[in-house]
Amino acid sequence: MIVMGIDPGTAITGYGVVKVENNRHIALGYGAIRTTAKQSTATRLETIYSDVRARIVEFQPDCLAVEELFFNKNVSTALAVGQARGVALLAGAHAGLPVAEYTPLQVKMAVTGYGRASKEQVAYMVKMLLGLNDMPKPDDVTDALAICVCHGHNANNWGRSR
Amino acid sequence: MIVMGIDPGTAITGYGVVKVENNRHIALGYGAIRTTAKQSTATRLETIYSDVRARIVEFQPDCLAVEELFFNKNVSTALAVGQARGVALLAGAHAGLPVAEYTPLQVKMAVTGYGRASKEQVAYMVKMLLGLNDMPKPDDVTDALAICVCHGHNANNWGRSR
Repeated sequence: MIVMGIDPGTAITGYGVVKVENNRHIALGYGAIRTTAKQSTATRLETIYSDVRARIVEFQPDCLAVEELFFNKNVSTALAVGQARGVALLAGAHAGLPVAEYTPLQVKMAVTGYGRASKEQVAYMVKMLLGLNDMPKPDDVTDALAICVCHGHNANNWGRSR
Repeated sequence: MIVMGIDPGTAITGYGVVKVENNRHIALGYGAIRTTAKQSTATRLETIYSDVRARIVEFQPDCLAVEELFFNKNVSTALAVGQARGVALLAGAHAGLPVAEYTPLQVKMAVTGYGRASKEQVAYMVKMLLGLNDMPKPDDVTDALAICVCHGHNANNWGRSR
């Protein structure tokens, strides 16, 4: 099973693609889709949508995985993240992919075994679990990869309950 | 000039289409795009995107107009509104339309002359200005038409500053 994890944001949308096979995780690719504040909101959203679609064509994932909700954010951040999340989910829907959603707690539990793990701990474990030479940068990419790992751990249950 | 105003939301996205000609406003159409909580988020966003695109094909507007930001909302509402707003803006971008954004204050000022006007006042003035027989329902449709009227009042400046 190939999972594409996405951590959406207007300026940086992190993505990661992980193949899960018999509890092994193989990173097929990861990176960041970047837009600049000089561009209009519509242009930035169009870039995110078309780049996610292009990565789907490139990696042929079986599903998307995103974080369900976040906390400790303010209203205007939530609006901006929502816009980016909306076009990313639309790109998945247009490609016919199912979407799995996990809470930050589920992601941290799956990756580190501890629901209140720090960002550094998550990054360290993502590097270890995927056998990467370096920590992926920025955090958005790490988070996208962490969501893939989380889905790898939960996919059996997810498949059954859908 | 034909303006399509959009008031995005996951359950109800209001839209209005107004032709502005020599300070006269003519409502060409308006209505609500509805989705239900039984559908997945991705399916709901796909419906909003494809319905906005279909209305653009139907009414051939020259631009979209949306509210810039809202206040008095909580974080999860903002995320949901952001997702719907994102796919609506993407539908406009894919049709090559420019997007005008106005604050709620600007919309109320343009429609009622008073920045702290009530919802009822806005609805009443939208009905008057557009010569409608009845108040449009629900509020999301009224708000979408109000944004059109606001853009009609501001379009000359908007055109110059872009």
